[in-house]
Amino acid sequence: MKYYIGIDIGGMSVKAGVVGDNGEIISQGSCQTFTDKHYSVMVADTYKLCEKILKEANLTKEDVSAVGIGCPGTIWSDKGIITYANNLHFDKVPLVAEFKKYWDTKVVIENDANCAALGEYAFGSGKGSKDCIFITLGTGVGSGIILDGKIYSGKRGAGGEAGHMVIKLDGEKCTCGRRGCWEVYASATALIRDTKTAMAKHPESLMHKIAESYGKISAKTSFEAAKQGDKLAVSLIKRYVKYVSAGVVNLINIFRPDVVMIGGGVSNEGQYFIDMIQKYVNKYHYGGRINPKVKIVRATLINNAGIIGAASLVMNI
Amino acid sequence: MKYYIGIDIGGMSVKAGVVGDNGEIISQGSCQTFTDKHYSVMVADTYKLCEKILKEANLTKEDVSAVGIGCPGTIWSDKGIITYANNLHFDKVPLVAEFKKYWDTKVVIENDANCAALGEYAFGSGKGSKDCIFITLGTGVGSGIILDGKIYSGKRGAGGEAGHMVIKLDGEKCTCGRRGCWEVYASATALIRDTKTAMAKHPESLMHKIAESYGKISAKTSFEAAKQGDKLAVSLIKRYVKYVSAGVVNLINIFRPDVVMIGGGVSNEGQYFIDMIQKYVNKYHYGGRINPKVKIVRATLINNAGIIGAASLVMNI
Repeated sequence: MKYYIGIDIGGMSVKAGVVGDNGEIISQGSCQTFTDKHYSVMVADTYKLCEKILKEANLTKEDVSAVGIGCPGTIWSDKGIITYANNLHFDKVPLVAEFKKYWDTKVVIENDANCAALGEYAFGSGKGSKDCIFITLGTGVGSGIILDGKIYSGKRGAGGEAGHMVIKLDGEKCTCGRRGCWEVYASATALIRDTKTAMAKHPESLMHKIAESYGKISAKTSFEAAKQGDKLAVSLIKRYVKYVSAGVVNLINIFRPDVVMIGGGVSNEGQYFIDMIQKYVNKYHYGGRINPKVKIVRATLINNAGIIGAASLVMNI
Repeated sequence: MKYYIGIDIGGMSVKAGVVGDNGEIISQGSCQTFTDKHYSVMVADTYKLCEKILKEANLTKEDVSAVGIGCPGTIWSDKGIITYANNLHFDKVPLVAEFKKYWDTKVVIENDANCAALGEYAFGSGKGSKDCIFITLGTGVGSGIILDGKIYSGKRGAGGEAGHMVIKLDGEKCTCGRRGCWEVYASATALIRDTKTAMAKHPESLMHKIAESYGKISAKTSFEAAKQGDKLAVSLIKRYVKYVSAGVVNLINIFRPDVVMIGGGVSNEGQYFIDMIQKYVNKYHYGGRINPKVKIVRATLINNAGIIGAASLVMNI
């Protein structure tokens, strides 16, 4: 049995876990992220967290084969540098070098969506495939591309940004500077924005009651109302599914992977949501008459994707 | 010195060339394609063509290391099968097996845009890069993706169809069944369509005179009028460049390659056209402040891309 540590850096907290070579988490923990402090503070805290979870697993540093780290933003993996991560206020941070001051072992860092994609490929919904694409529908639209079992992220890790593929030229403004990016239509944020707009125009919609019972308008509001037959919500969801699927079909026509895995908050809507995407994909993918269909599946590692994904980064290297 | 044969199958003719290992064409020839006859006729003619060009090069079959074939359509390269090529009326054609009846040597078949991409990577505008993308702007919009020096074409070669990436949801109808594909806006066909529409509305435009002098409306009409200061043509070209560039930026954000190579008929407009795409790309690619710019170049193999590309398919295998 080999052991790895997977570290998942986020804007609120750093999570870490000791992971076995079958992808099982043996022990795990977390510590707070202080985005207003120097990155060296976070690295020191993260190292202490590693010591803690190793102790809980009755293991020592010598038992660990390697450490994998996932982090949001543009990661130049070959150099171990976080090029840019706006939410963490990181700008050219040599994270691997800083971590090695405490623990001089094999350490690899990658973008968190890429880690999640690799984790799903190795131990989740992408198991057994060769080429697969992971899409996360949350605050934004993230993507991770696995080709022949390896993360593809382009020059200096700046690729894999499918969320910033324009699907509606001259459409809504995106934070990246373009108009009409996939993210502006297919993220949970976009669905909530469109839900609010629709609700404001239609005070009779069931969505008002549902939002009230939950105390807020969320990505769930329209899905739940649609399931209960609210016509406005049904049309909202239909349009949202079209937005999501349009980008998925684009990626299928470009990559023709074995499988597309859908994760992120909205994927909690489950098979109902996945089935709608699959239906659209089957209808519109290029050469539908001759080419085999591409399977759309729900990502399965859910909350553990970050830790397992980061650990899978350093397995078999 | 090693020798290869590169065969470029087209709707009008089959071209073939003896190619040396530096990508130089030693002898070449062509024969007619009869799309109304059985594919075995074309293969027999192609084999005769190979004999002819070998003789002209003072070589024999024994001097040839391998044969590479490029063909339009969906090609399942691993199986040597043309899955589907509508213009050639080919449906599940076992082309490699048929060719081997005449000449039992190493034979590899690939999609022609993929071959051109590989040729440009090995001997043309992509030389020295690692990941590069080739776009051809002609009747349609074709694409070839080279990752780490190898063609990426997805499952059963059905990927690499970036022309069928939607950039304008619910836009103009595409032959593939979707609406708003890149091809419907960025192909030469699309530019000619838009030129005709604009000319019909503006009889005073210089484009009428230019079209008359050439005897037809072509992709050149608007480019030439724009260079001569015709305002309508300037706005047409500006919009066309935006269409082309929007798709290029999408591919850059997904792949972040070293270089994007532009080929096909419209690329004959030269550096003037390439510079406009580069300007748009520099402005809109994701993370422009932190990520290095991606170079846009004109494809350089031009008319020889088919033969050299097909030959490069079988070098170093």
